[in-house]
Amino acid sequence: MSLIRKVIGIVFVSCSVASFSSAVAAESAYLLESADQVAAMQLAIASPGRFTDEFNKQRQRIDAILDALINIPVPADAGGGYTHEVHKQNYVNMRMAGRLYLLTQDDKYLNYVKSHLNGYAAMYPSLPLHPKKKEQTPGKLFWQSLNEAMWLVHVIQAYDAVKDSLSAQEQQYIETQLFEPMVDYLSEQSPDTFNKVHNHGTWATAAVGMSGYVLDKPEWVEKSLYGLDLSGKGGFMRQLDELFSPQGYYNEGPYYQRFALLPFVIFAQAIDNNEPERKIFEHRDEILTKATNATVQLSYGGLFFGINDAIKDKGINTIELVHGIAIAYNLDPQSGLLKIAEEQDTILLTGYGLSVAQALDEQKQTAYPFESIVFSDGLNGDEGALVVLRQNQSEAHQTLVFKATSQGLGHGHFDKLHYMFYNQGKEIVYDYGAARFLNIEAKYGGHYLPENNAYAKQTIAHNTLIVDETSHFDGNTSTGNKYHPDMLFTELDEHLQISSASMSNAYDNIVFDRTMALVNAPSGKIFVIDILNVDSQGQHQYDLPVHFYGQYIDSNVAMNANTTTQSPLGSQNGYQYLWLQAQGKPVDELARVTWLKDSTFYSHSTVVENGQELLMVRIGANDPNFNLIANQALINRVKGAGDHQFLSVLEAHGEYNGAKEFTRDAASQITELRDVSNETSEGLTLIKISFGEAEQYVLAINANAANEQSKMTFEYAGSNHVITGNAELLQLAN
Amino acid sequence: MSLIRKVIGIVFVSCSVASFSSAVAAESAYLLESADQVAAMQLAIASPGRFTDEFNKQRQRIDAILDALINIPVPADAGGGYTHEVHKQNYVNMRMAGRLYLLTQDDKYLNYVKSHLNGYAAMYPSLPLHPKKKEQTPGKLFWQSLNEAMWLVHVIQAYDAVKDSLSAQEQQYIETQLFEPMVDYLSEQSPDTFNKVHNHGTWATAAVGMSGYVLDKPEWVEKSLYGLDLSGKGGFMRQLDELFSPQGYYNEGPYYQRFALLPFVIFAQAIDNNEPERKIFEHRDEILTKATNATVQLSYGGLFFGINDAIKDKGINTIELVHGIAIAYNLDPQSGLLKIAEEQDTILLTGYGLSVAQALDEQKQTAYPFESIVFSDGLNGDEGALVVLRQNQSEAHQTLVFKATSQGLGHGHFDKLHYMFYNQGKEIVYDYGAARFLNIEAKYGGHYLPENNAYAKQTIAHNTLIVDETSHFDGNTSTGNKYHPDMLFTELDEHLQISSASMSNAYDNIVFDRTMALVNAPSGKIFVIDILNVDSQGQHQYDLPVHFYGQYIDSNVAMNANTTTQSPLGSQNGYQYLWLQAQGKPVDELARVTWLKDSTFYSHSTVVENGQELLMVRIGANDPNFNLIANQALINRVKGAGDHQFLSVLEAHGEYNGAKEFTRDAASQITELRDVSNETSEGLTLIKISFGEAEQYVLAINANAANEQSKMTFEYAGSNHVITGNAELLQLAN
Repeated sequence: MSLIRKVIGIVFVSCSVASFSSAVAAESAYLLESADQVAAMQLAIASPGRFTDEFNKQRQRIDAILDALINIPVPADAGGGYTHEVHKQNYVNMRMAGRLYLLTQDDKYLNYVKSHLNGYAAMYPSLPLHPKKKEQTPGKLFWQSLNEAMWLVHVIQAYDAVKDSLSAQEQQYIETQLFEPMVDYLSEQSPDTFNKVHNHGTWATAAVGMSGYVLDKPEWVEKSLYGLDLSGKGGFMRQLDELFSPQGYYNEGPYYQRFALLPFVIFAQAIDNNEPERKIFEHRDEILTKATNATVQLSYGGLFFGINDAIKDKGINTIELVHGIAIAYNLDPQSGLLKIAEEQDTILLTGYGLSVAQALDEQKQTAYPFESIVFSDGLNGDEGALVVLRQNQSEAHQTLVFKATSQGLGHGHFDKLHYMFYNQGKEIVYDYGAARFLNIEAKYGGHYLPENNAYAKQTIAHNTLIVDETSHFDGNTSTGNKYHPDMLFTELDEHLQISSASMSNAYDNIVFDRTMALVNAPSGKIFVIDILNVDSQGQHQYDLPVHFYGQYIDSNVAMNANTTTQSPLGSQNGYQYLWLQAQGKPVDELARVTWLKDSTFYSHSTVVENGQELLMVRIGANDPNFNLIANQALINRVKGAGDHQFLSVLEAHGEYNGAKEFTRDAASQITELRDVSNETSEGLTLIKISFGEAEQYVLAINANAANEQSKMTFEYAGSNHVITGNAELLQLAN
Repeated sequence: MSLIRKVIGIVFVSCSVASFSSAVAAESAYLLESADQVAAMQLAIASPGRFTDEFNKQRQRIDAILDALINIPVPADAGGGYTHEVHKQNYVNMRMAGRLYLLTQDDKYLNYVKSHLNGYAAMYPSLPLHPKKKEQTPGKLFWQSLNEAMWLVHVIQAYDAVKDSLSAQEQQYIETQLFEPMVDYLSEQSPDTFNKVHNHGTWATAAVGMSGYVLDKPEWVEKSLYGLDLSGKGGFMRQLDELFSPQGYYNEGPYYQRFALLPFVIFAQAIDNNEPERKIFEHRDEILTKATNATVQLSYGGLFFGINDAIKDKGINTIELVHGIAIAYNLDPQSGLLKIAEEQDTILLTGYGLSVAQALDEQKQTAYPFESIVFSDGLNGDEGALVVLRQNQSEAHQTLVFKATSQGLGHGHFDKLHYMFYNQGKEIVYDYGAARFLNIEAKYGGHYLPENNAYAKQTIAHNTLIVDETSHFDGNTSTGNKYHPDMLFTELDEHLQISSASMSNAYDNIVFDRTMALVNAPSGKIFVIDILNVDSQGQHQYDLPVHFYGQYIDSNVAMNANTTTQSPLGSQNGYQYLWLQAQGKPVDELARVTWLKDSTFYSHSTVVENGQELLMVRIGANDPNFNLIANQALINRVKGAGDHQFLSVLEAHGEYNGAKEFTRDAASQITELRDVSNETSEGLTLIKISFGEAEQYVLAINANAANEQSKMTFEYAGSNHVITGNAELLQLAN
């Protein structure tokens, strides 16, 4: 059977794409694969292996529904509702039936796809706008055009697989009644979305461009690439140029990055397969490969860093990234990508999926090279950065994520110079992510909850500075979009990984900078140093929260607990959602809180200055519908201060072993933490951290170093020391 | 080397135990193994496999500390403190060094054990009672004699391994200065503990009896078996007769059962190895094998059911159960035990450990046969029961645990007719377990927290009836120990597993009974039916809490939430630890709460009667040190009622899939839940449960059935039906 098909495929090449102009001569029989690849897939399913396992699984799944009544309901429901879900399921099943037809040439799959296409063709031309339409971006089959574009990206693949087996009359009916009107609706009739440099635009251009290849409409491809007016002001190429930073960081963060990825890579695959001369994957210094790898690098323990409006259970196993990794592997077969593919545990029945499946069968995977990376943000990479500092490449490694990015558009949070910390495969110091229960009707229809704007986006929901209980940019996204942090320096040395950034304009007349370091001490100790300086006019209240997962163990601060009545911490800007559990005035030099998460203890210590207080809070006030997750935070608070420094260290220490009934090092190891800058040359920052007498460090920072090689000598404690570049971790002799 | 040792072993047999009387003729060269077993172990480490891997791991670990200074500090600290931990570590290391000497005959291990024994012998005779002694059960090396007995159980194994290689003078010194005084202290000088029928007594008798075999003191063995006066009123045999129910259930619950298990099985192994004619493992219908298997059956997802004073991270991988499973496997090589051994992932360097290691190398393990079991409680099995109802044997199976046991002595909770529910490998409706952070000094020295008595033991911390905000037996353990529930019936049929019990005396003039069923409907639906009837004089307030893990999704009850100020639910009996978050009066026939845990939705629905209210609470009030875990519960409350029925159904339904972005069946499927007993013959209970029109059930209960075969015919809804035995699940025809 596969041999017959190969011939058909070749015949198909010569007739189906002949009308492409010579400038865009199509090279391939199919939308996403060459005829050779299709033949290889047909051959592969005769032998055991992952590809065949997946084929059998999908065949079983589709065979079970082949005889079901065709269900193409008149659009009625919004996202998550019945008709919405049925049309989603239909596009998934049509695409898969198309795949199975490609692999088996069994007419039952052809008929399944054909009946559905005819059914949709019979309905589509007469559809009005969706009754539950979203005002700005309405669809017809779905409440928003985004879903309509997703439908088309999938279904055009199904049509591609069967088109050749349909009569000219059948083709004409389906194309004129379904695909042409839908393409017209998504492009000419929805110019704002189509031309928008935004992921909705990517879905639309991908859908239309892919349809152009299948229906032999080069003009659709051109519009998709360069915008409706072909000017290049909109369209896919512009999106490639603007939606990613030079390092492949997507402005809205990894959650939306992986969502945006599918139309990017699949349309690029279609372009490369049909018009390799466009060298689409080489565009902008291989931006799509970079973006795919960035998405992986922006994960920990299999889950994406939960910044901005992230749904926190999303990770590298999402279908978008399965396609991305497989396509990237086909472009450049790096064995580390196979490790990710193995963890994704999903095989694709495509040409590029076959390469991955076979390589996994041969056990070619090696560890994915997770690294410390500065993902600079913005079109030119000069609008702040997301800084990822990883201890090493082990599965349990500690990771510090320093969020000095720009706002991230509508899905961005007011969280300038925020951070998260990960250890042993889990998030420890957390970002709340989005307040949303995706697809759960009972929770506000599965939409972003009102608490997303009111709490989750607000600064107090993050681990960064809040001035006077007001969010950055006063909680105004368009103001936020205008500004970004300035990166001061980053150094990634063996024992010291450090990054520093400054933020102006988050508050009027206040500038704050933050320097965060992940220290891998020669002794084996690992800890985070956090220096947050506020430069201010006038007197203000400063809050610096640390949201942590785990069970509070103890604190050296005697706190007054609100044991018999609890009230919210504030009245607005997210503060109204926090129960104030306890607060106290530290008497020691450090305010410390220790907690236990799984088998590790964590201690957060902050130098006490300016009458600082420690507050313990739990999420849940003003939440009558239990829309928020009742987690906790500690807050260091200073009132009536001008300039101020929050100097903190976060340690992961000790072990709690319940099964073996032992505990070690349950208490913080830090005996001293001080800014000793005044004991050395002007302009340097010196932070002293001691773990008893035997292990003492000085973190020396020269913010003004000309470059990473420039050296500066300074005296401290009677000896001379040298800073190379911006920062140095010195261990003091005993 | 192994051959040489074998000869030595045989020589050892003939000289070392010759003085045993003919009635207790020792058969073995070693305390726990025959000479043949030791030879087999010596042979095994020459070949690759699990046993050799463990040998190499332990050798590496011990070799690394052989040259360290011997550290035998003068006892000073309580549990978890420095000297406590050092002496614990010493006994673990001495035992292991002894094992390595047995395996290798390498003198370095002999010297390690010998030096430590000499060190302890030099200190022990002059030790006063421990400075931090527990008043009732003081130790010398440790704060309590329990730890001293544990030390001896381990160290006597080390001595057993090296004794033969010591000179007569060395032996005499160690025996007269260390073991004899310690045995004397643990037995003659601590008669209350030694004779006590309690797990502390088991450790003491095991330590003394095992020492008797090694030091050739048959009189120590006799005292251990039959008490100091040899009357049989105390001692190991009495403990075997009284501490387990006929099914091997240990009165204090599985957490203490696994703790108690080690001295039981290891002393029994020593008895069997030295005096097989005692047939110790056959005693009381093989009670020790039953107890070992019961410990496994009392687990879910690898963790023990967290009833009574359980630390909830304890499970089948604890070292006690590793010994128990290996010894059980040696007695009767059931392949299911190997599955548990595989999950324990710990190989023992003992004779019985070798059998397990080799069987695992040969991959002989098969699924452990988890079953639905009624663990009757009490010496004669007539003091209530712990009823475990399992849906099936899959890893993700649903399990209902109905706790109709007796009080469980000092570690028991006031939780008569309480229940827990498990699904997908996790606890869903939970038991709080103990309020304790074991070995965490900062948390009340690692002891049971004050909140253990004040909250965790109280009835409100459980999922059962609380009358007038007062705990069962008014929170008095000695009163609780006098009473127990009466089991009414249990039936374990394919589609219906049901158990019923009644409780008097928990409250004056109030009797309540509860019938709980796990339904495996033919349609595939699985749900729990819960019928709790209160028979009362006078008017009372009844609370029925359901403590659940997961995120609240919604309720059909409009509740008034305490959004801006929160107060405790009550002032005593544990109520003072609960924040009242919200409460409301149901208007529908059912009060329903739906929550999401991992990927599954759960709905709890209770029929609304007698002006019932629904309350939502979260743990954390009056907890200034954050000693409690801030979880949540729903409470159905009725005020001023006399007789009352709480009729509830718990459903696990639907799926939330974040990675694949779909949700199905997020809402409760139940459309009707009613007690329709008044529509049929007197004396029957009929509960109707409908999932729409198409799927309707009637649970019919005949509490007075003579036996499981007796049949009763009744009429309902115009048809005749038959109950066989006590209960029947009928599906109504459409």
